[in-house]
Amino acid sequence: MADASSPADSGRRDATPVKAIDWAQRRIVIDERGLAEALSRFAEVVGTEHVVTELSALRAMGQATVPDSRRPSAIVYPGSADEVAQIIKLAESRSVPLWPCSKGRNWGYGSAAPFLEGTVLLHLERLNRIIEVNEELAYAVIEPGVTYRQLKAFLVQHHPNLWCDCTDGPPDGSVVGNALERGLGVTSYGDHFATLCGLEVVLADGSLIRTGGGEPGHCHTWNTHKWGVGPYLEGLFSQSSLGVVTKAGVWLLRRPQAFVSFTLDLADEANLPRLVDVVRELSLQGVLPQGTHIVNDVVALAVVSQYPRELVGNCTRLPDAVMRELRKHLTIPQWSLGGGLYGTRAQVNAVRAELRRALRGLGRLNVLTDRKVRALLRLETVLESLRSRPLLRQAIAAGFRRLSGKSVELLPVAKRVHSVMQGIPSDYFVRHAYFKSPLEKPEDAHPDRDNCGLIWFAPIAPCTGNHVQVVLNLCKQLFIHHNFDFYAALLMQNSRSMIILLSIFYDKDIPAEANRAQVLYSALTEATQKAGYQQYRTGTMGMAALFSTAPEYGRFVRRLKTALDPMGILAPGKLPH
Amino acid sequence: MADASSPADSGRRDATPVKAIDWAQRRIVIDERGLAEALSRFAEVVGTEHVVTELSALRAMGQATVPDSRRPSAIVYPGSADEVAQIIKLAESRSVPLWPCSKGRNWGYGSAAPFLEGTVLLHLERLNRIIEVNEELAYAVIEPGVTYRQLKAFLVQHHPNLWCDCTDGPPDGSVVGNALERGLGVTSYGDHFATLCGLEVVLADGSLIRTGGGEPGHCHTWNTHKWGVGPYLEGLFSQSSLGVVTKAGVWLLRRPQAFVSFTLDLADEANLPRLVDVVRELSLQGVLPQGTHIVNDVVALAVVSQYPRELVGNCTRLPDAVMRELRKHLTIPQWSLGGGLYGTRAQVNAVRAELRRALRGLGRLNVLTDRKVRALLRLETVLESLRSRPLLRQAIAAGFRRLSGKSVELLPVAKRVHSVMQGIPSDYFVRHAYFKSPLEKPEDAHPDRDNCGLIWFAPIAPCTGNHVQVVLNLCKQLFIHHNFDFYAALLMQNSRSMIILLSIFYDKDIPAEANRAQVLYSALTEATQKAGYQQYRTGTMGMAALFSTAPEYGRFVRRLKTALDPMGILAPGKLPH
Repeated sequence: MADASSPADSGRRDATPVKAIDWAQRRIVIDERGLAEALSRFAEVVGTEHVVTELSALRAMGQATVPDSRRPSAIVYPGSADEVAQIIKLAESRSVPLWPCSKGRNWGYGSAAPFLEGTVLLHLERLNRIIEVNEELAYAVIEPGVTYRQLKAFLVQHHPNLWCDCTDGPPDGSVVGNALERGLGVTSYGDHFATLCGLEVVLADGSLIRTGGGEPGHCHTWNTHKWGVGPYLEGLFSQSSLGVVTKAGVWLLRRPQAFVSFTLDLADEANLPRLVDVVRELSLQGVLPQGTHIVNDVVALAVVSQYPRELVGNCTRLPDAVMRELRKHLTIPQWSLGGGLYGTRAQVNAVRAELRRALRGLGRLNVLTDRKVRALLRLETVLESLRSRPLLRQAIAAGFRRLSGKSVELLPVAKRVHSVMQGIPSDYFVRHAYFKSPLEKPEDAHPDRDNCGLIWFAPIAPCTGNHVQVVLNLCKQLFIHHNFDFYAALLMQNSRSMIILLSIFYDKDIPAEANRAQVLYSALTEATQKAGYQQYRTGTMGMAALFSTAPEYGRFVRRLKTALDPMGILAPGKLPH
Repeated sequence: MADASSPADSGRRDATPVKAIDWAQRRIVIDERGLAEALSRFAEVVGTEHVVTELSALRAMGQATVPDSRRPSAIVYPGSADEVAQIIKLAESRSVPLWPCSKGRNWGYGSAAPFLEGTVLLHLERLNRIIEVNEELAYAVIEPGVTYRQLKAFLVQHHPNLWCDCTDGPPDGSVVGNALERGLGVTSYGDHFATLCGLEVVLADGSLIRTGGGEPGHCHTWNTHKWGVGPYLEGLFSQSSLGVVTKAGVWLLRRPQAFVSFTLDLADEANLPRLVDVVRELSLQGVLPQGTHIVNDVVALAVVSQYPRELVGNCTRLPDAVMRELRKHLTIPQWSLGGGLYGTRAQVNAVRAELRRALRGLGRLNVLTDRKVRALLRLETVLESLRSRPLLRQAIAAGFRRLSGKSVELLPVAKRVHSVMQGIPSDYFVRHAYFKSPLEKPEDAHPDRDNCGLIWFAPIAPCTGNHVQVVLNLCKQLFIHHNFDFYAALLMQNSRSMIILLSIFYDKDIPAEANRAQVLYSALTEATQKAGYQQYRTGTMGMAALFSTAPEYGRFVRRLKTALDPMGILAPGKLPH
C-alpha cells in the first residue's frame, strides 16, 4: 500500500476514495466523493441491494471479540466468482482497498473487521454453493460462503458415507475461509489447509486462475492431486493477501467402519510434559490421529459454566482456591487429553489397547462408544425431567458421581465432544466465548453481536514436553501478572508440532479490562517471539508484528505482494506494510 | 529469459557469455570470452579446481538416458550455501544462465543435463552435509548433495530408531533433489515433497531466505511446522526455477514396532480397475499406506531379466506370445500389487486381516515377514552354492515352484522389495534401466555412463479403476503402435490420485529407435493432455509443453518468474519461456 499513502500526488485523486492511510492509527482517510463513485460502480456489478453503507450494518461488521476492531466504510456482496473478478478489477483501477471475508466468523482473530478502518469489506457469503461432491474420490468443491453446518447437512442427506471435518468453533464459519487461515479441526483431517486441493483464485488484477493448471476440461486431478503441475502455489493464498479464493476442493473423510472418542484426566499436572511426549510418539507411530488435544481446567470451566462473579466479586482472575473448589465440584481435572479413533473395527480395537498401554500411570482412560453416549443421553433426559424434584435429581447425580467419578454437569460435554469428533459442528462450544460476558449463554450464540471479550493467541512449539512446558510457563506467568485466567488448549498441528492455543477472556464492557487484555496480548507476543516461538496463525491484532522476527522472509513476501498486487488493494495490513 | 535473447542490445555484451538463445534448437550461443571471464570470477569463489571445463566432464554431464540431451558449457561446484549465493549473485550481474543440479541422478527425466545446451551447471554435490538429526522429533536437516545411501547409513549407525524413505531408483540420488521434483518413495512417507519442512533458499538475486521465517534462533518449529508464518511458500521451489535450495528439513519415520511387506498377483487382468478401486478404498480408510503400488509384467521382467534379443531378433517390442511364455517361465503375473504395512504389532495384524478380506477373489495375497525373507535368503544361498550341480539345483527350484507357485528367479526381487519398503536403498532396481542395453547389467549401475535408453513418462489420474484404465488403454495402444514394450507402474500419489509411471525402454545405440522413442513420447504427451491428464512430473523433454493445457496458470507462474528472476538466470527452460 506504499503507493497509496499519498495518492494526492498521483493525479488520480478523484478516482480513489483513499486520501491517505494512517498505518499507526490503522485507518484510511476517506474521500467521500471518491468512495461514493466507486460504490456506484460496484453496484452496477452486484446490484444496489448488495452494496451496503448503513451505519448499523457497518457497525455490526466492525464489531469483534478482540478489542480495538475497525469498521469498514462499505460492504459489497458479490454473488459469483465473475462478480468478484469485476469488483476487484474496478477496485484496482481506482485503488479501492478491499478486505475479503468469507463468513466473518473469525472470532478471536478479528471476526469480519478489517485491519484498517475504512477498508471496503468484500463479503463472500453469497458465494455459498456446494458445486460438487465426489463420493467415489471423497471430496467436495465448494465456494467460500459454504459453512460447516451447511456442508454437514448436505452430506448427511446426500452422502452419508462421507464425513467433513469441522472445528469446535462456529458452525456457521466458512469451511474454505478457515482452511485458508490454516485453522485446525478435530478429526483425523484436522489440518484444514492440508485438505484443500484445487483453488480458483481471483488475483489483484481481476484475472482468474486455477492452481495447478486445473483449467476446466484439462485436468481431471484438479481436486485429487494437491501439487498440480510446476511449482505448487496454493500456499501463496493461505494466511495471505495475494488473491481471493472463490472456489476450493476440500478432501472429505470416508466414513469409518468404527469410531470411538476418548478422554483421559491427567492425574498429576507434573506429568504434563510426559503426556505430550507420549502423545507425540503415539502420533509418530500412527496410533493417534490428528485432532488429539490436551486442555486445561479453564477450558473445561468455560465450556460448562461461566465466570462465577458471585464468588469472586471484582477479581478478574479466579483465585487459586476458588479454581480448586470449582474443579472439585465439577470434577474437572487440571489437564485432560481427548480425541477420536477412526478405522476398521480391528484397527480401532488395536489402537485402543495400545493407547491404554501407553497412557498407563498417567490417569484413567475413558473410551466413549456410541452406545455409551446413548446411555449418557438417557441419563441427561431423566435428570432434565426431574427439574421439579430436586432431591431425587440430586440423589441420582450423586450416584452417578460415585460410579463414574464425574459430575452430571459434564454430561453435555461428553456427548458434544463425541459428536464433534465425527465432524458434526455444534453451537455448544462457541458459547464458551461468553465466559466473561455479563449475559447468560444464549441459544443463538454470536459473540460479536453480544460484545463478548475473547482474543486468541496461538504460538506453536515443537511437540516435546520440554518445549510445550517452556511456552506454558512463559505465558502463564504473564496471564497471572496481568490478572487473567490462563486458558490453554494444546492442539496437535501434526506429529511434530503442538499449537498452544491461549485465550484471553475479558469483560469487553469494562474499558480498563479490555486495555489490560491488549497489554497482555502484546506481552505474550513479545515474550514468545523472543523465546523463538512463532504463532501458527494470527488475527488483526498480531499482523503488524507477524514478520518482526523473520525480516528476510518478510521482505521476500513483500516482493511477491508488490509483484502481484502493486496497488496494494487486497487486504491492506494483512501482510506487513 | 526474454531479456537475454538479444543481449547485444543491452550494452553489456562483454559481461555475459550469452550471445543469443535459440529456444527452438535448445541452445545458448556462447561468447567464449564472456564465459571465460565469468568462470574466472566463479573460480575466485569456489577455487579453480571446482570450475570444470574439460570436454570429457562436460560430455559426461550432458549424457542422459533420454535422447537428445544437452551439454553444459562448464560445471561449477560450490562448497557451501554462501558460495552458492556468491555464484548466483555473480551470475545475475553477468546474465550467466545456471542449471542447478543436486546429484544429477534424475535418470529418465534428463539426469544432470540442462534444458539448453551451454547452460553452466551449478552442481551441488559438494553440499553433502547431514547437519542435524533430531531423534525425538524424527527429522533431519540436510544439504542437497546428501544421498539416500548416505542418509540411511548415517541413520543405521547413529539413529537406528529412525527410518528414511527412499525410492527404488538410484541410491546415490539426492534426497532433497528428489523431494523438490516431488518424486515418490516406497514407504508410508512416500510423498517426498510432503515430508520437506523448512527450506533454506538462495534466490536469483543471491539473497538467502528461510521459508516460514525460520531465521536461526527465531523459530524452533522451522523443521516441524510445515506451513510457517504468513503465506506458505515452500511449494514455490518445487518443480521450479525460482530459487536454489541449499538446506532442507526432511521428516523421518519412527521405526515401526512391526513391519511386513505384501504382494498379490492379480489373477485376471480384467479385474485391474476393481483392484484400483479396492486399493483406493483401503487407502481412504487408513488401511493401506502410501507406497502401495501395482506393476505390470514388463516392470517385473525388466527387474529380473533383460530384453531377450536371442528370442526375438530385431523386434523392438516383445511379441505377445513371447511375453506370455516369459511370464509363464518366470511366474510373473500380468499385474501385481505390492506394498508395506507399518505400525504396532496389533495394528499390522488388523490391517493384514482387513487386506486379505478386501482382496478376496482378486488373487493370492502373499505376506512377507522378516523371518520368511531370511528363509528365502537361505534358499538363495543354497542355490548359489549349487552352481556346479545344475541337476540338484534344478530339482530344488522345481520343488520351490511346486510349493510356492514361484520361480526361483524371483527370489532376489522378494528380498529387495521387502528391504526397500523399509527405506533401504538398493542398486538392484536401478539395473532394470539396462533392459534394452546391449551390456549385461553391471554391479555398479550407471545408466547415463552406459548409454542406457530410458524415458519416464508419468501422467497422473484420479484413483479410480475407470480413469486408470482410460489412461492405460490410451497409452498402451501408442506403445504398441510405435513398437515399444508397455512398461506400467501404478503408484499411489495419495489416496485420491494414481501416478501412471510409464517407461520407454529403447536401445540408445540405434538412432532410429531413439527417434521413435521421442516420437512416442510426444504422442503420449499429446494424447494424455488432450484427454485431461496432467503429468505429475516431467523432465527436460516435456518442459516446453508443461503448461500448454494450462495457459492462465502458466502466465501466472511466468509473472512470478519475472518478479523473482528477471534476468532468467536460474534453470532456463525449466519453466515455460
